[in-house]
Amino acid sequence: MTGFGFYQRISKAYYGHPHLSKLLLVFTVSGGGGLLVYSDRGPLMSNTAFDDDIKRKKVVVLGTGWAGTSFLKNLKDPNYDVQIVSPRNYFAFTPLLPSVTNGTVEARSIVEPIRNIVRKKKFDVQFKEAECYKIDTQNKKVYCRSGHETNLGGIEEFAVDYDYLVIAMGARANTFNTPGVVEHAHFLKEIEDAQRIRRSVIDCFERASLPTISEEERKRILHFVVVGGGPTGVEFAAELHDFVIEDLAKLYPRLKDLVKITLLEAGDHILNMFDKRITTFAEDKFQRDGIDVKTGSMVMKVTETEICTKERATGQSVLIPYGMVVWSTGIGTRPVIMDFMKQIGQEDISAIFSKADTNNTGSLKVEDFKEVINDICERYPQVAIYLKKKQLKNFVHLLKNSQGEAELDIEKFKSALSEVDSQMKNLPATAQVAAQQGAYLADCFNRMTLCEKYPEGPLRFRGIGRHRFHPFRYKHFGQFAPLGGEQTAAQLPGDWVSIGQSTQWLWYSVYASKLVSWRTRILVISDWGRRFIFGRDSSRI
Amino acid sequence: MTGFGFYQRISKAYYGHPHLSKLLLVFTVSGGGGLLVYSDRGPLMSNTAFDDDIKRKKVVVLGTGWAGTSFLKNLKDPNYDVQIVSPRNYFAFTPLLPSVTNGTVEARSIVEPIRNIVRKKKFDVQFKEAECYKIDTQNKKVYCRSGHETNLGGIEEFAVDYDYLVIAMGARANTFNTPGVVEHAHFLKEIEDAQRIRRSVIDCFERASLPTISEEERKRILHFVVVGGGPTGVEFAAELHDFVIEDLAKLYPRLKDLVKITLLEAGDHILNMFDKRITTFAEDKFQRDGIDVKTGSMVMKVTETEICTKERATGQSVLIPYGMVVWSTGIGTRPVIMDFMKQIGQEDISAIFSKADTNNTGSLKVEDFKEVINDICERYPQVAIYLKKKQLKNFVHLLKNSQGEAELDIEKFKSALSEVDSQMKNLPATAQVAAQQGAYLADCFNRMTLCEKYPEGPLRFRGIGRHRFHPFRYKHFGQFAPLGGEQTAAQLPGDWVSIGQSTQWLWYSVYASKLVSWRTRILVISDWGRRFIFGRDSSRI
Repeated sequence: MTGFGFYQRISKAYYGHPHLSKLLLVFTVSGGGGLLVYSDRGPLMSNTAFDDDIKRKKVVVLGTGWAGTSFLKNLKDPNYDVQIVSPRNYFAFTPLLPSVTNGTVEARSIVEPIRNIVRKKKFDVQFKEAECYKIDTQNKKVYCRSGHETNLGGIEEFAVDYDYLVIAMGARANTFNTPGVVEHAHFLKEIEDAQRIRRSVIDCFERASLPTISEEERKRILHFVVVGGGPTGVEFAAELHDFVIEDLAKLYPRLKDLVKITLLEAGDHILNMFDKRITTFAEDKFQRDGIDVKTGSMVMKVTETEICTKERATGQSVLIPYGMVVWSTGIGTRPVIMDFMKQIGQEDISAIFSKADTNNTGSLKVEDFKEVINDICERYPQVAIYLKKKQLKNFVHLLKNSQGEAELDIEKFKSALSEVDSQMKNLPATAQVAAQQGAYLADCFNRMTLCEKYPEGPLRFRGIGRHRFHPFRYKHFGQFAPLGGEQTAAQLPGDWVSIGQSTQWLWYSVYASKLVSWRTRILVISDWGRRFIFGRDSSRI
Repeated sequence: MTGFGFYQRISKAYYGHPHLSKLLLVFTVSGGGGLLVYSDRGPLMSNTAFDDDIKRKKVVVLGTGWAGTSFLKNLKDPNYDVQIVSPRNYFAFTPLLPSVTNGTVEARSIVEPIRNIVRKKKFDVQFKEAECYKIDTQNKKVYCRSGHETNLGGIEEFAVDYDYLVIAMGARANTFNTPGVVEHAHFLKEIEDAQRIRRSVIDCFERASLPTISEEERKRILHFVVVGGGPTGVEFAAELHDFVIEDLAKLYPRLKDLVKITLLEAGDHILNMFDKRITTFAEDKFQRDGIDVKTGSMVMKVTETEICTKERATGQSVLIPYGMVVWSTGIGTRPVIMDFMKQIGQEDISAIFSKADTNNTGSLKVEDFKEVINDICERYPQVAIYLKKKQLKNFVHLLKNSQGEAELDIEKFKSALSEVDSQMKNLPATAQVAAQQGAYLADCFNRMTLCEKYPEGPLRFRGIGRHRFHPFRYKHFGQFAPLGGEQTAAQLPGDWVSIGQSTQWLWYSVYASKLVSWRTRILVISDWGRRFIFGRDSSRI
């Protein structure tokens, strides 16, 4: 995700590609992390659009993660025929995945069948348990593959037509092509990952209990390594530490002193997207807990028993023997999305440029931008955020600032935008963002007819008139970083930072309230209660 | 398990085999179903036995099922060094397995880590997660294999020495060597089986929802077949029916009318070990529910999509297309136990014979038996039960009855015993029996020293004096047969039969009270509560 990012590249691709005329908006999204796209009829087709309004439009939603589910929950207009395609027939409350890895919360407590979520809809919603492996924008079809075998030993495959396509498939773990990671490391993106990690932790303890294992080997097996000091990695390390101290130490008294937890982070600090106070608190707490935080440590290779890192401070390679490794360094794009990107091609920034270049001189006076500044800022929220952060008054200042010139050609314009983009990454890959995006998109669908008539969005760079909708704006409600031992840090909007046990209770209440159904809410709360009373279960099932 | 059964064959083998001099008692056991053996010093060694009493005796327990866990819970004498070897580091409350298959109860709610169960013991208890694959009675060693791989890609193997060996490994599902069963059928013996079945049921529904599937194929996929009309098969069929009617029908409205459940039973009736009234009630209820009960139907072969049966009534072969099949026809012996049986050889009934034949004539007057009748009945409880059932006064009558002669040689004696055995099967393979056997055995261990001095058992057939302990007597507290729809049948001692919703509540309370820990108790009760309120979860995890 470099350059101007998916957001821009896809979102505007339709202007240059007639067959994509239905593509309107794209977000990078996650929770599960991912990408949400939706396409609709372009303005060029609006004259013919109402002709077949009697026939309900086919909306295909790919994915049942945060964005997809939020979209489905918020979609109210009954004039759609909705089909959902996802390899998971449930929605999972992913922020609690680290809790599932250690049994603080049960996997079953944080999932809700998608059919249950949509069955009260007034319109027809069908679910198909399959994975989309190819999107054909030309013929408006998605090709899907189910996990079930046919009688002939093959795999069930089918295609689904769409009028509107909502891509909310999420991302996959990013290994940065580090050798051995896929083979030996655990990820923490799906329910199954969390269940596997839980079994693996117990496996390590059981294996270390066998009489054939040497002391050195035992230490290796009980060395748990977490790669990536982001919120997920930190929370997992903290949860694992609690599990070992509070529960496993009692059941494996001979092993408890051999357990070691290491957190490897390539950057200078863990939780680097958080406020400095939180980072410092977390690092201090982990040090007190005996969790070994190694910053500036880049993983080069993972073998079955060792992790090879390169230490930035010394430049040396270090071999770390380990028993289990969890890889949580961020997310990458799924192959099907990469393919989709290739299909629709790269966005041409020139559309914006030519819009501003009213005289068609091929070169732009900064004054020329003034007309389109507000529209640029609305369509590219990161530009607005960047300006605010750098305390620049407007886009003209940005251009002046970066180029030092009063006039610039398209290349310079591109590089100015790139600079903004490189510093202002896409929205964070969190559940919060994805859920808001899903809700926003559903709102667009709900108000489609109204906004056809009275478009409310920014000026179109290509074509005439305005976009129908305001682009998506993310409203940040803050972020939690659970640190174990009933301590949680929270960064709230307005640079509010809250750390400690009271924040843990805030965490409990926010998460409980955000759960998707009363069933999951009650189950998760009773799981928490059960953990307080009985501890976590260590049966290897 | 023919002839005089494992119980006798193993239990007395030690008299004829010096190296088995530690073997004292054997039970066929189950819950998980299985075999429980324990060995100790024989009377011939009792003079030297006290010499090394200072050194604690090594007790090795194989298995963490009903018998093994009950043994561990009841063992109180701190003068043992106990090692447990089992591939499962938990105890599972197996009577609730059918409930786990449909999510009425969660798998995690019915398991308890074995380390948790034994950690409050006053003596040293160690657990090793491994499977015993060979018992060497000559050198008093068990050979074990862990599921964990070594660094060299092999499997961790080790041997454990014992002074006393408690075999409580349970049985495995019995396929009667029917082709295709292992490959295509689900069993219902372990937690993993139940979890797999749960996923499979959902898989069938999801697969049947795919657009590529023809109507006929859809019907096939939604045809659930249960082979075996015993309590487990019947309960599973009933639970599945409830799951479909109460939960899945709402989520898969297009499929609900295509679902079919068939129960195949080779005998004339389902639940044939129960009272006639229960059998009739169950058959009627299943008919009302639309569960197709086919009796007299013997499965000959299972392919990926079809079950081939032979109908006793017509003698014809029938092909039944199916989507999922659960095999629950009873239990068989594990290979390691078969091997063990071979090692210790077959029991010689001649020991009893020669004890009775005081004059060494090779032929026995029935009067000769009078001396040993009580002992025979105590050591072979089925003889006593048989006599009671046939309303014979004593063993002499049995002999007279079966032979019609006043004198008999060893062959006739054997055939008289065989007849008893063939009619009076070993104790049923239930959790109840296994738990009582474990407790009995623990009690023997607890009173070992006392009973060495004051033996209280029956006369020894070989050697002199008495056995130290009374043999195990099973006390039957009744048996439940849940039939779905909040209806349960119960057969209580004294031919009491109770059927209906009140019995379901009795079932709830008995099962809740029998659960192994407060944790599992509360979890199971809250699972039941959750099911009442929210229904069962159908997420495919």
